[in-house]
Amino acid sequence: MSDKRFYGLQAPLTVRTAALATGAALVHGNDTLNLRDVAALEMAGSDEITFARGARHLKGLSSLSAGLCFCTKDLKDTLIALGTQAVAVCPRPDEAFNTLASQLVLPRQAHFTETSISPDAHLGKNVQIGAGACIGPDAHIGDGSIIGPSAVIGPGCVLGQYCVIGAGAVIGFTIMGDAVDIRPGAVLGEAGLGVVSGELGIVSTAHFGIVHLGDAVRIGANSTVDRAVFGQTRIGARSKLDNLVQISHNVQIGDDCVLASFCGIAGSSILGNDVMMGGRAGVADHIKVGTGVRIAAAAAVMKNIPAGEVWGGHPARPLRRYMREQIALRDLAAKKGASE
Amino acid sequence: MSDKRFYGLQAPLTVRTAALATGAALVHGNDTLNLRDVAALEMAGSDEITFARGARHLKGLSSLSAGLCFCTKDLKDTLIALGTQAVAVCPRPDEAFNTLASQLVLPRQAHFTETSISPDAHLGKNVQIGAGACIGPDAHIGDGSIIGPSAVIGPGCVLGQYCVIGAGAVIGFTIMGDAVDIRPGAVLGEAGLGVVSGELGIVSTAHFGIVHLGDAVRIGANSTVDRAVFGQTRIGARSKLDNLVQISHNVQIGDDCVLASFCGIAGSSILGNDVMMGGRAGVADHIKVGTGVRIAAAAAVMKNIPAGEVWGGHPARPLRRYMREQIALRDLAAKKGASE
Amino acid sequence: MSDKRFYGLQAPLTVRTAALATGAALVHGNDTLNLRDVAALEMAGSDEITFARGARHLKGLSSLSAGLCFCTKDLKDTLIALGTQAVAVCPRPDEAFNTLASQLVLPRQAHFTETSISPDAHLGKNVQIGAGACIGPDAHIGDGSIIGPSAVIGPGCVLGQYCVIGAGAVIGFTIMGDAVDIRPGAVLGEAGLGVVSGELGIVSTAHFGIVHLGDAVRIGANSTVDRAVFGQTRIGARSKLDNLVQISHNVQIGDDCVLASFCGIAGSSILGNDVMMGGRAGVADHIKVGTGVRIAAAAAVMKNIPAGEVWGGHPARPLRRYMREQIALRDLAAKKGASE
Repeated sequence: MSDKRFYGLQAPLTVRTAALATGAALVHGNDTLNLRDVAALEMAGSDEITFARGARHLKGLSSLSAGLCFCTKDLKDTLIALGTQAVAVCPRPDEAFNTLASQLVLPRQAHFTETSISPDAHLGKNVQIGAGACIGPDAHIGDGSIIGPSAVIGPGCVLGQYCVIGAGAVIGFTIMGDAVDIRPGAVLGEAGLGVVSGELGIVSTAHFGIVHLGDAVRIGANSTVDRAVFGQTRIGARSKLDNLVQISHNVQIGDDCVLASFCGIAGSSILGNDVMMGGRAGVADHIKVGTGVRIAAAAAVMKNIPAGEVWGGHPARPLRRYMREQIALRDLAAKKGASE
Repeated sequence: MSDKRFYGLQAPLTVRTAALATGAALVHGNDTLNLRDVAALEMAGSDEITFARGARHLKGLSSLSAGLCFCTKDLKDTLIALGTQAVAVCPRPDEAFNTLASQLVLPRQAHFTETSISPDAHLGKNVQIGAGACIGPDAHIGDGSIIGPSAVIGPGCVLGQYCVIGAGAVIGFTIMGDAVDIRPGAVLGEAGLGVVSGELGIVSTAHFGIVHLGDAVRIGANSTVDRAVFGQTRIGARSKLDNLVQISHNVQIGDDCVLASFCGIAGSSILGNDVMMGGRAGVADHIKVGTGVRIAAAAAVMKNIPAGEVWGGHPARPLRRYMREQIALRDLAAKKGASE
Repeated sequence: MSDKRFYGLQAPLTVRTAALATGAALVHGNDTLNLRDVAALEMAGSDEITFARGARHLKGLSSLSAGLCFCTKDLKDTLIALGTQAVAVCPRPDEAFNTLASQLVLPRQAHFTETSISPDAHLGKNVQIGAGACIGPDAHIGDGSIIGPSAVIGPGCVLGQYCVIGAGAVIGFTIMGDAVDIRPGAVLGEAGLGVVSGELGIVSTAHFGIVHLGDAVRIGANSTVDRAVFGQTRIGARSKLDNLVQISHNVQIGDDCVLASFCGIAGSSILGNDVMMGGRAGVADHIKVGTGVRIAAAAAVMKNIPAGEVWGGHPARPLRRYMREQIALRDLAAKKGASE
C-alpha cells in the first residue's frame, strides 16, 4: 500500500484491463476484480498489483493475498497455491508491473512554478525559512525547525520539532522525527537506481515507498538517501552519517550507527544498532550486519556479519584474518624475491 | 574547433604573435598565418592552435593540418613531416598552449546578476520552471521539460523534450536528448581536473569541449559529469547513473549502461554498450571496456577489458581469477597459522 | 581560542559553575577563576576550557596553561603537574566538555529569513552576485569576485579578490585567499562527523574551528571540506581538488597538491606540498604524508608515508611491493590450480 501523503491513486482498473494493457496471459482469478494500488509481493492485499521476481522470491512464503501478480510461467502454480487472487503470466513480469504501476499510482510532485511556499504547507511555531526555500503542499514543519536557503521540502513531507535543513538540501517522500540535522546539499527521497529491461532497452524502476528518519539523525553534506521501492528506507534514532554517504532504496539502519564519508549501503541491506563503519566502507545489497559490528575503512562487505564482529578488507572478512593474510602475502612475495 | 554555442572567439592572432606571447621558438611555418580557434592535435585545422603531449601522442598519426602546434624540441621534425602548418618549440608546450588558448577562446558565462531567466532563452511549450531557477541566454528548453527550483541551465545548453532537471542541479556546456532525467544536485559541464605545471606552481587545464547526453539518460543525485577538454564527454541513450557518480572529461559511455553509486570513470576512458558496474567500481584513465562487460562492486579497473567479460578486484582482473586468488591467499595464511 | 569572526562568546562562567553543571569533581584549582572560551588542550589559555582524551594525548607535552581541563581520574596528577589551572574529573570528559562548550561558545548563524544579502556584508568593487545567492553579516567579498546563483556565504567569511563561487555552493566558517575557485555544489565549513557517547546515546561533536584556503585553491563540484574542531582545516596555495572529494576536520594539506575524484582525507591528517593522489585514494586519520608523495588510485593509506615515495594498494604500501605481491598471489593461485 502506497503512503497517501506522497502518492495519488488513479481510477482503479480491473484484472482484465491490467492483463490486456500489458499483454500478459491471465491464468487464474476473477477478471472483474478491481485493482487500486501496488505493493511488494508479500505485503500486497486483494486490491493491489504486484509481481514475483523468481523462484527464490517465493521461498519461505506460506500465504499470499495479492489482487494480481505478474509472473513467469514456472511460478504460476505456486502463486495460485499460496492464495494469490489473480495471476498473469508474461516473459518479463517486472516490466509489466513497472509499466502498469506507474500509471495506477502517481508520486505527488510540486514544481514550485508559481509560489515557493505552498499555502497548503503546515508551519509550526517559530519556524524559520531561508530565502528561496520551497515547501510543498501538505508538508508539515515542526515547531522551531529551520529550513536553509534554497532548500526544498516536497509535498507531504513531515519534519518534527527543531529539525535543521541545510542550504540547498532537497527532501522528498520523507517522514522524520525531532531534532534531525540535514546538512547542505543532501538529497533525500529520490527514486533509487533500478532498471527494468524491456523491448526498447532499459528503463528506470518506479518507486512507491518513502524515507523514514528517527529522532536526532544526522545526514552529512551532499549525502543521498533513496526512498524505498515499496515501504520505507529507514535510519534509526541518533544515527550519524558523514558527508557523501549513499543509502540505497529499502536499506534499514538501526539506532546509534555511525557511517563515515563515502560509506555506501546497497539496496535492502540491514544494519543493526550501534554499527560503526569507517570511511569508504561499502555493504552489498541484501546483506545483514549485526548489532555492534565494526567495519574498517575501505572494506567491501559482501557477506552477512554476525553481531559484535570486526571486519575489514576487500572483500571483507574478519579483520584479524584479513591482517594475517596480508602478512602471509608480504612474506610470500619477499621469499620469492629472495629466491630469484 | 570549439562549439560556438558555448565558446566565443576573440580576435585572431598570427603565428608570430602566438610565438612571441609564449616565448616559444618558431621553428617552422608562415608566421603571418591567422589563428582563430583551438583543437586537439589530431583534429586541428589550419587556423587552429594545438600542442603535442609527447612522442606517444604522435604514434599512429599519418597526417596533421594544425595551424600552430607547440611541442618540445624532440618532436618538431615529426610534426613538420606530418604536415603541421607551423611549429613552435618550448620546454612546456602544455603550459604555452593553456595560457594562449585561454585568451583566444572564452567560455560563455552568465552570472545571473540581473535576471534569472534570460530573455534570450528559448522555452518550448508547457515548460515548467521552478522558483529561483536560472536559464542562460540562447539555452533551448524542449517542450514539456521541467526545471526544478534553484536549478541552473547555462548559456547555449540544449534540452530535448520532456527532460526533468532536479532542484539545484547545475548544467552547463551540455547538449541533451529527450526524456533525460537529471536528479537534484547533479553538476554537469564543469571543467575537469587537470593541471599544468608552470613556473609559479600548478594551474588548472582550460577546457574547450562540452557534454553530450543521449535520450532517456538518467544522472543520479549529486553526481558530476565534466565537460571535455576538446570535443565531447558522451553518455549514450538510456544509460542510467546512480547517485554520487563521477564521469571525467572526455569519457565516452555507450548506450544502456548502468553505473551504481560511487562509480568513477577517469579521463578519456571508453565504455561500450550494455556495460554494468557495481557500486564503487572505478575505471582508470584511457581504458577501454568492451560491450556487455560486467564489473563487480568496488573493482579498480586498470587494464582494458574485452567485450563480455566479468571482472572484479583491486586491481581488477577476471572475477573467477580474483576469487581463486582470494581462496589461495586464505589457504596460505591458514597453513602458515597452523605451522606456527 | 575561537575565531571571533565566526563564534560568539556567552557570559563567562566560573570553574565552580563548570564543575557543577557537568557533575564533574573539581580536584584542583581556584574555583572562582572565570572561563570565557574553549581550545584544544595544548593551546588552551588560563580562561579556556578543554579536555584530555587519554594518556597518549599528554605524551610529549612539557607544560599546559588551560583554565579548566576535564579528564578521567588517571590523568589528573599529570595534568596538575603540567600546570593546568583547574582540573575536573568525570567518567566521560569529552561529553562534559562537549555539553559545556556548546553553551559557552556559539557559532554565528544567519538564517536569511528576511534578506538574502545582509546589509552588514562588505562587497568589494565589481563583485557579481547571482540570483538567489545569500551573503551573511560581516562577510567580506574581495574585488572582482563572482558569487553564483543560490550560493551561500555565511557570516564572517572572507573571500579574497577574483574568487569564483559556483552555483549552489555553501560556504561557512571559511577564510580564503585570492583567485580561489569553488565549483558548484561544494560545501565548506560544516562541522565534521564526530560523536560523543553519552547516557542517552551518541551526540555530534561541537566544532569551534574554521576552514582556511590559500590563493588559487580549486575545490571541485559537490566536494566537502569540514571545519576544524579547534583551529583550522587548511588547504595550501594552488592545491586542486577534484569533484566529490572529502576533507575532514583539522586536515592540513600543503601547497600544489592534486587530489582526484573521491579522494578522502580523514581527520587531522597532514599532507606535505606537491602530493598527488589518484582517484578514490583515501588517507586514514592522524596520518602524515610527506612532500612529493604519489598515491595510486584506490589506495587506502593507513601508515605515514615518507617524502618522495610512491604508494598504492589496500592497505597501501610502497607501490613496487604491492605490485610484486599481486604477482606472487597470481602465481600462487595458478600453481595451485595446476596441481589440482
